[in-house]
Amino acid sequence: MALYVMKFGGSSVGDTERMQRVARRVVEKQDEGHQVMVVVSAMGDTTDELIDQAKLLNNDPPVREMDMLMTTGEQISIALLSIAIHQLGRKAMSFTGWQAGFRTEPVHGKARITDIRPERVQRALEDGNIVIVAGFQGLTEEGEITTFGRGGSDTTAVALAAATSADFCEIYTDVDGIYSTDPRIVKNARKLEEISYDEMLELANLGAAVLHPRAVEYAKHHQVRLVVRSSFNHNEGTVVKEEVNMEQGVVVSGIAYDKNVARISILGVSHVPGVLAKVFGSLAAAKIDVDIIVQSGVTDGKADFSFTVALSDREKALNVLDGIRGELPFQEVTSEENLMKVSIVGAGMVSHPGVAAQMFDVISKEGVNIKMVSTSEIKVSCVIDGSKLNEVVKALHTAYGLDTESQAVVGGPQDRR
Amino acid sequence: MALYVMKFGGSSVGDTERMQRVARRVVEKQDEGHQVMVVVSAMGDTTDELIDQAKLLNNDPPVREMDMLMTTGEQISIALLSIAIHQLGRKAMSFTGWQAGFRTEPVHGKARITDIRPERVQRALEDGNIVIVAGFQGLTEEGEITTFGRGGSDTTAVALAAATSADFCEIYTDVDGIYSTDPRIVKNARKLEEISYDEMLELANLGAAVLHPRAVEYAKHHQVRLVVRSSFNHNEGTVVKEEVNMEQGVVVSGIAYDKNVARISILGVSHVPGVLAKVFGSLAAAKIDVDIIVQSGVTDGKADFSFTVALSDREKALNVLDGIRGELPFQEVTSEENLMKVSIVGAGMVSHPGVAAQMFDVISKEGVNIKMVSTSEIKVSCVIDGSKLNEVVKALHTAYGLDTESQAVVGGPQDRR
Repeated sequence: MALYVMKFGGSSVGDTERMQRVARRVVEKQDEGHQVMVVVSAMGDTTDELIDQAKLLNNDPPVREMDMLMTTGEQISIALLSIAIHQLGRKAMSFTGWQAGFRTEPVHGKARITDIRPERVQRALEDGNIVIVAGFQGLTEEGEITTFGRGGSDTTAVALAAATSADFCEIYTDVDGIYSTDPRIVKNARKLEEISYDEMLELANLGAAVLHPRAVEYAKHHQVRLVVRSSFNHNEGTVVKEEVNMEQGVVVSGIAYDKNVARISILGVSHVPGVLAKVFGSLAAAKIDVDIIVQSGVTDGKADFSFTVALSDREKALNVLDGIRGELPFQEVTSEENLMKVSIVGAGMVSHPGVAAQMFDVISKEGVNIKMVSTSEIKVSCVIDGSKLNEVVKALHTAYGLDTESQAVVGGPQDRR
Repeated sequence: MALYVMKFGGSSVGDTERMQRVARRVVEKQDEGHQVMVVVSAMGDTTDELIDQAKLLNNDPPVREMDMLMTTGEQISIALLSIAIHQLGRKAMSFTGWQAGFRTEPVHGKARITDIRPERVQRALEDGNIVIVAGFQGLTEEGEITTFGRGGSDTTAVALAAATSADFCEIYTDVDGIYSTDPRIVKNARKLEEISYDEMLELANLGAAVLHPRAVEYAKHHQVRLVVRSSFNHNEGTVVKEEVNMEQGVVVSGIAYDKNVARISILGVSHVPGVLAKVFGSLAAAKIDVDIIVQSGVTDGKADFSFTVALSDREKALNVLDGIRGELPFQEVTSEENLMKVSIVGAGMVSHPGVAAQMFDVISKEGVNIKMVSTSEIKVSCVIDGSKLNEVVKALHTAYGLDTESQAVVGGPQDRR
């Protein structure tokens, strides 16, 4: 007998029929002799519908009240799933985040878990119940309802698995697992049998939107064995764990890309260090995440530097720079869209020095200029012109030996929360 | 400065526009210099929609999970109302039932309040917030979410008023107040300026569905001053309080009727006391409420007796009787539909002995037979043939001097929860 956490996203419980399918899937697991805890997200578009309702009343709704509103989505899901499981003749109990013992810091919309007190769900498990926990939500010490932000249900699942020493945390989604790249672009993308936390983290951060980065971090920190698999079939998924089998000599495990990228350049900067501090301090104060930062060589005591932000933050970032312009010694600000960031990720990279050079070579052979480069121990990212996205990803996929004979089978848009 | 509880039912917050109207109404009250707590029900048909969703998954859904499901309706309402009030530039905080300190007995679907710990809402009030509390819900000592059953939001409002020593508990609905009878039947029904708790209780129990009986009982017990008024206009409503002004010499305050009545007769009963105990014990065990019980005279040691149940319980009651038939000495069970119960209610009745006789006279002049009679100190009820409902109610309304010159103005179907 093992203890499982099974997490189902919003599209997996999007209607009555899907809810029933999840119920059967959960009961199957119990039939195999295991104890089961289930974490669910809000059904289908519920969260977006609630946000729309709020925006009709207030275009800047207070975050505390938004948390109060949004957490109902998961509460509806857990109750209905429990009701569906009872119909199959099993004992089930649903718990809101706070009932399941999730305590968070006093922040709305993006709270971090501070503590989990799982005694109540453990008691319910011991009583033979299938336990169903609302994802994405917790409670502060003051009794305020909080949410974890997008991807929060993954975090709930991982944290619950960690707190109860579960043997497996299965993340059910609408794809079969983690792929070597987006199968919508590369038809013969490879489903990975296993992947390390660090690799997954890079992929998750790079927009391979199957698992939320925070959940992966949490899993790594608590050594929770994650399995990403499909809620629509019984294929084996991808196992995410600490050490993966390197025997195959795989250097690059996956290719990720991100189209939500804009580049902003600040030209003719003197007194570089002071300017950098001021610029990035101001952007941080405006809650704009900056990704890659590149500084060019200095000429006549003046330097240029560039950085990337999410495309959706471009306008806001330019406004921030406009606001501090008077105080700072730089000549010009330019910005660029229609870019993409493409990245190769692989734990094996550390011991293979030629990997980055090979990447630049493949990209340039496609006739595409590399505008920015960023590297970590297990990743190389290039910002390039976005018009040849598919060609570049395909060429890299082939170059690193990731192509498989059979074509990947995937579902619709992936399940993020 | 006074402390108000304002309660708005589901139809008052049924859509965005109505939600905004309630927000303005609440802010107006604060502008008059008062502290305001608001209790809201689930929006419009939300509760019924949630029940429908549950029934698609399970035709006998467990009550614990139904409470988990249903309480989301009110949670959505409080969050959206708070968001709407913030849009008007005011501070507001919403609280679920458990956050507002409502503790209940450990029963699902129909829990009674055991305790209210309003410190948190009082703190929010002192901080200048408009406080918004989810109706209809509480928490057991074990942390289980419970609901109060239909009409539960009225009870929340009254209980909150009692616990915080509020000066007024205003129940906003879609009629102008309590009427001398149903204005849909009697066009010149009279809106009552005031009514006693006891009278209201009789009217509430008799199907004048503006206030839930449990809420009235609670108000009487804690001497909470209730005001029933319209959420669609600023007309003065009806005040419900302990002692009402008797100067006008009003004997009968209102006429109520109930069409949800069936009569069941058990004929040829010997050993009457034993049979009664067995019959009503079995009905109670099946959770069937019995209203009026009448026993006819005894002939040859055998008696007949009749009782009324809700029409919707008729089949169930007959099945219960069928089940115990073998054990009991009675000859026959018959049942009758198409009945109505009509009642006159008035605190002044106590000192006016001819009131009941006048009622029988009025009914018989309409050519209608009286099948059963039941009385209390402030009420006389008759079960009669249902076909002449309108005529009988009108005739009684006129006979007791309740007709007014002007016609009553009322809205749509009344707001029950």
